[in-house]
Amino acid sequence: MIWFTEYQTENVALNIRAKEVKRIKSKYQEIIVLDSYEFGKMLVLDGLIQTTEKDEFIYHEMLSHPAMLLHPEPKKVLVIGGGDGGTVREVLKHPSVEQVHLCEIDEEVIIVSEKYFPSISEKLRDPKVKIFIEDGNAFLDEKENYYDVIILDSSDPVGASEILFQENFYKKVKKSLKENGILAAQTESPILQEEHFKNAVSNIKKVFRNVGVYLAFIPTYPSGMWSFTVASDLIDVKNKKIDEERINKLKTKYFSDKLSHCLFSLPKFVEEMI
Amino acid sequence: MIWFTEYQTENVALNIRAKEVKRIKSKYQEIIVLDSYEFGKMLVLDGLIQTTEKDEFIYHEMLSHPAMLLHPEPKKVLVIGGGDGGTVREVLKHPSVEQVHLCEIDEEVIIVSEKYFPSISEKLRDPKVKIFIEDGNAFLDEKENYYDVIILDSSDPVGASEILFQENFYKKVKKSLKENGILAAQTESPILQEEHFKNAVSNIKKVFRNVGVYLAFIPTYPSGMWSFTVASDLIDVKNKKIDEERINKLKTKYFSDKLSHCLFSLPKFVEEMI
Repeated sequence: MIWFTEYQTENVALNIRAKEVKRIKSKYQEIIVLDSYEFGKMLVLDGLIQTTEKDEFIYHEMLSHPAMLLHPEPKKVLVIGGGDGGTVREVLKHPSVEQVHLCEIDEEVIIVSEKYFPSISEKLRDPKVKIFIEDGNAFLDEKENYYDVIILDSSDPVGASEILFQENFYKKVKKSLKENGILAAQTESPILQEEHFKNAVSNIKKVFRNVGVYLAFIPTYPSGMWSFTVASDLIDVKNKKIDEERINKLKTKYFSDKLSHCLFSLPKFVEEMI
Repeated sequence: MIWFTEYQTENVALNIRAKEVKRIKSKYQEIIVLDSYEFGKMLVLDGLIQTTEKDEFIYHEMLSHPAMLLHPEPKKVLVIGGGDGGTVREVLKHPSVEQVHLCEIDEEVIIVSEKYFPSISEKLRDPKVKIFIEDGNAFLDEKENYYDVIILDSSDPVGASEILFQENFYKKVKKSLKENGILAAQTESPILQEEHFKNAVSNIKKVFRNVGVYLAFIPTYPSGMWSFTVASDLIDVKNKKIDEERINKLKTKYFSDKLSHCLFSLPKFVEEMI
């Protein structure tokens, strides 16, 4: 019997029973593809679950759609990280989109996703998508006033991704966005990674005028409570009403018009953290 | 090093590191008190985590307050199960309450909670509280048109608690409630216990005219996404506006006025299950 263990903290671990395990060593990390009983196929990077067939729709919808819908007409979108392709797939559901840049540091993640996760990676070869195998931080150096939406689909703020949670990086994001551009980022678990969460939000607040934090249920991430942050200088993300017609046209399984009305209503203890 | 393991399903387990473990065998079940690093002291019944010092406030607030606030003036309240006392503590925060009956089948749970979980059980000896060591199903046989709110604070629908999720039991609950009475129940995880969840909600719908389902983040319960159901014949639970003043007077750490506005806005895939 195969049991995969993720140590979510030093003191908490999630165990998932699998039929099969494949290990691939890339230049940057160990990639595991797990065929699990409960969650279908799972992508694991350096021991941490990134996405699973069963619940990936939650993470990818909730990372993408709020920012995309808060923007009046997103045409140029950048996804940093997200080599599995799930975020790109959701972004392309918005009819205004003309160009999606995906900047992923580890090409092997894309190769593995196209081989083992066809339902997640299916849109990576869409003609609107351009893939850059580059470091996201360096990539932004050359961009100015270019994107409508930038989505940070990163792994946890340890190792290579640490820099993607720092004030200087968010400044580069802002410079690369158009004036009414919007940032969306996954910002960790308020319960099991309270410090990471608080730092990410507080650094984003140092750089952007309007910042909104919201949550979603992600059963395979630590604690199951996951946070996302949207930010913009011009767009009042927390108070702008999301267009019902646009949202209802999206094919989603989690996000809905109803959820959008109370996106930023947080449990008290989370509200008090930020 | 002590690691406690809960098998949330056959294929998923949560592991929690502990400093100390105490085992007590009662007439009904094995009670474990775990002193964990991440979640503080934890109460475990027959291998399943019931409550932890760190996150108990979420479950107890979310089980109690919506029903209590939807009722115009709850005076007589019954809690079935809930021997740890957390639900009783929350119910007593409502100033209209005159009488709280706690019907717990296993006296040992109360004894253990009073010994090891003083912050959870602190109100069990309040003069408004009367404790009945009885089977909840039999207890209701003798009640008619009596309670304003009945709260089902049960363990999972296996073994002794199975009956508490069945149509006949909900009929007894309805008979024991006053005409404008409200039922609140924990109704399992839509993600990892989909059938239990659907059955509970569908049985409640067979008995009550107005039924509302809502969710909360509970990190130590399977998947972290937990469901609750409120139901009433007279009160339109899903559309009644909760009184801001009453809610703001409660000392809560999770539930708030803001959350109450969108209590019943569910993720699409959960909405489709019910």
